[in-house]
Amino acid sequence: MLEDLKKYVYEQNMRLPKLNLVNFTWGNVSAVDRNKELFVIKPSGVDYNKMKPDDMVVCDFDGKAVEGDLNPSSDTPTHAYLYKHFKKIGGIVHTHSPWAVSFAQAGIDVPALGTTHADTFYGSVPVSDALTKKEIESAYEYNTGVVISRTFKERNIDYMDVPAVLVRQHGPFTWGETADKAVYNAKVLEIVSEMDYHTLQLTRKSCEVPQFLLDKHYYRKHGRNAYYGQK
Amino acid sequence: MLEDLKKYVYEQNMRLPKLNLVNFTWGNVSAVDRNKELFVIKPSGVDYNKMKPDDMVVCDFDGKAVEGDLNPSSDTPTHAYLYKHFKKIGGIVHTHSPWAVSFAQAGIDVPALGTTHADTFYGSVPVSDALTKKEIESAYEYNTGVVISRTFKERNIDYMDVPAVLVRQHGPFTWGETADKAVYNAKVLEIVSEMDYHTLQLTRKSCEVPQFLLDKHYYRKHGRNAYYGQK
Amino acid sequence: MLEDLKKYVYEQNMRLPKLNLVNFTWGNVSAVDRNKELFVIKPSGVDYNKMKPDDMVVCDFDGKAVEGDLNPSSDTPTHAYLYKHFKKIGGIVHTHSPWAVSFAQAGIDVPALGTTHADTFYGSVPVSDALTKKEIESAYEYNTGVVISRTFKERNIDYMDVPAVLVRQHGPFTWGETADKAVYNAKVLEIVSEMDYHTLQLTRKSCEVPQFLLDKHYYRKHGRNAYYGQK
Amino acid sequence: MLEDLKKYVYEQNMRLPKLNLVNFTWGNVSAVDRNKELFVIKPSGVDYNKMKPDDMVVCDFDGKAVEGDLNPSSDTPTHAYLYKHFKKIGGIVHTHSPWAVSFAQAGIDVPALGTTHADTFYGSVPVSDALTKKEIESAYEYNTGVVISRTFKERNIDYMDVPAVLVRQHGPFTWGETADKAVYNAKVLEIVSEMDYHTLQLTRKSCEVPQFLLDKHYYRKHGRNAYYGQK
Repeated sequence: MLEDLKKYVYEQNMRLPKLNLVNFTWGNVSAVDRNKELFVIKPSGVDYNKMKPDDMVVCDFDGKAVEGDLNPSSDTPTHAYLYKHFKKIGGIVHTHSPWAVSFAQAGIDVPALGTTHADTFYGSVPVSDALTKKEIESAYEYNTGVVISRTFKERNIDYMDVPAVLVRQHGPFTWGETADKAVYNAKVLEIVSEMDYHTLQLTRKSCEVPQFLLDKHYYRKHGRNAYYGQK
Repeated sequence: MLEDLKKYVYEQNMRLPKLNLVNFTWGNVSAVDRNKELFVIKPSGVDYNKMKPDDMVVCDFDGKAVEGDLNPSSDTPTHAYLYKHFKKIGGIVHTHSPWAVSFAQAGIDVPALGTTHADTFYGSVPVSDALTKKEIESAYEYNTGVVISRTFKERNIDYMDVPAVLVRQHGPFTWGETADKAVYNAKVLEIVSEMDYHTLQLTRKSCEVPQFLLDKHYYRKHGRNAYYGQK
Repeated sequence: MLEDLKKYVYEQNMRLPKLNLVNFTWGNVSAVDRNKELFVIKPSGVDYNKMKPDDMVVCDFDGKAVEGDLNPSSDTPTHAYLYKHFKKIGGIVHTHSPWAVSFAQAGIDVPALGTTHADTFYGSVPVSDALTKKEIESAYEYNTGVVISRTFKERNIDYMDVPAVLVRQHGPFTWGETADKAVYNAKVLEIVSEMDYHTLQLTRKSCEVPQFLLDKHYYRKHGRNAYYGQK
Repeated sequence: MLEDLKKYVYEQNMRLPKLNLVNFTWGNVSAVDRNKELFVIKPSGVDYNKMKPDDMVVCDFDGKAVEGDLNPSSDTPTHAYLYKHFKKIGGIVHTHSPWAVSFAQAGIDVPALGTTHADTFYGSVPVSDALTKKEIESAYEYNTGVVISRTFKERNIDYMDVPAVLVRQHGPFTWGETADKAVYNAKVLEIVSEMDYHTLQLTRKSCEVPQFLLDKHYYRKHGRNAYYGQK
């Protein structure tokens, strides 16, 4: 069942250690089959070195495993919630990459301070509200999805324009049209978090980019008038 | 004597350079045989590249070498003291990993600022008191064990809930049910020290996680209700 | 056409990932043939691992591709402008190397704080003015060249003495007599940006080097009285 | 002439890139033959990848090359001065390692904040005075040796107890009984500079170690009562 998707999800998971985005087993990638309303995700707590494509777990949009011998990632209900509510996304990534986590722990957005950011994220990457005691004590991972979704609604951010969030006190989730793009976005978020950290230490002057620079760089790479790369 | 344990301790020591936790010979792992009241530890000042399983030294709980041609680690009396007083631990690690050392030198606990920390350490990793002149001038390494143990008693911390300490002006010791877990804890401490350093530079607001988040994440991975990973 | 130059430009581009100056496809090197008034540049958005010498694109000084199946780098008009106006340069490099970007985002020159800097750059590496809305909305990449050139004119800096600039809110461009030297300068800029960042965090005292130290080190390596290296 | 010493000096130079202490050609190691009053040093500006043992240059204590086809390191007069005046040293290393350079540029000693430092350096690693205009304009490299020597005399530091200096606005020189120990000291200086930088950012409280801890750790590894390592 979904053998090609399992292989693809396996390969996307294996990019995380290569891109220096995970330590130990602390990260996961999933990808969705929209027709079947199923997604494939990394098993929980399995070593990247020992993992095989067949270890990937197939889940439904309630986060229930429907195939596979292993437990799916403990973050599965978050992925399920996001696939259900962010209908345009094809893949999701969660990591504990250290620069992004530092902003998540500090409760500070990763601001758009330059073109590196604007090429990928159309505005600040938001930090979510902290989950409440009640949200944590019941259905924690599901509620993580709820809080992410609420953050984008309340702050009026289009989740395809800014395909990333920092869950407060936790770390980054990113997504995209495909799992491949979600992994790319996870790395870009880590890179701009590092750049922004150093920028904010160098100066206390506000240095967010103006809207017109954000427009220029974002639309140079996205949408119908994009002209970066090859046709 | 204890050939299997020597091989195991050798392998756990070799993980330290692979995990970027040591420079030169600055680190050591030991593991205990509780029935025999003996432990096996790395020899002192021997190059990781030249070390063999047979070079490991067997010591008793007074820190005396009972087998082996080489001197045991100069930190052996600290290990011996900890095995004697922390009766549930199976392995101990000492390193000079740079982020953890920075907190030890500054005399600041590594606070629980996020889920990366809460997954492994059930609260702040404490910095010990500095050793006094008297404690340093006689039986220094033994007294390092005394100070570690005193820190956990005075601050009422369960050494199995927070299996790590920063010896002030020195560096980290970690432990666990097994040497394998102690090495894991040494790496996690280094990772969260790095994250926390950056968080504390980003904001001066208090950002320790609430008790209910600590509970959720710690017990997601520990104890009978743990649900992370595979059965 | 220009087969040797294509091979050379390919090789210089491949140095960028080896020197840890680029992530993904975020960088480009070009080199010029002054007789033919043509330059060769990396194609836009092509993976370093898949790129071949034949993929390099030949462009004229108006930034038009005159040979090659692929689109040239989106930064081509900036390169073209610089070749036209900085007549002594033979190669240009653009990267998003993180330490240099941090200064560009903060809007702060990389100051000459030591001999590492003075060996290569005869004074501060300037940060340019931000491009205006108008400059960004029409002919953005061309205007990036205009702003770079204006920066050197207004601040009365010789572009051969300081072969590097930080485009504000964007990142570094470097150049040199050859593309090889431009790549070298890109790496030196990244190294001194890192050193200077840490120096500026350690002290708020002014610590720019005096003119006579700048003279000594710069001319130890440049000009007719240079005595560093082999004849 | 001195073929064995050339081979040894070559090997010690090759450790610098492996220990991440140099970029490009920015570093050099020398070793002395005290009987012949000659030393062997790396040639100036030669790539580590292309260097061979035979490329090493033999120099006398006035810094003159007495054998070898290549120019010796431009820092040769500094090495010569130090061999002449620091009579117990057998090897010297110069690098531009970034953490040590940051302290040199800031004009701040690397303080003894922990046991990692105390194991190798018996007190702060001093930053030298800046060279004067006159000292720079004539016999610059020779005067670098003069200033280093003066720093140790004025501050009453034994150059064997603290085998390292930060030349202000420039970078570290380290030495030792052998070139092997000088390379070791260069790496330790870089490691403790990194640790100390982060410590100083975490706290503004004074956190230098007390004399009795310095004594304990330094003499645990040095002198007749040392007990670290193997006999």
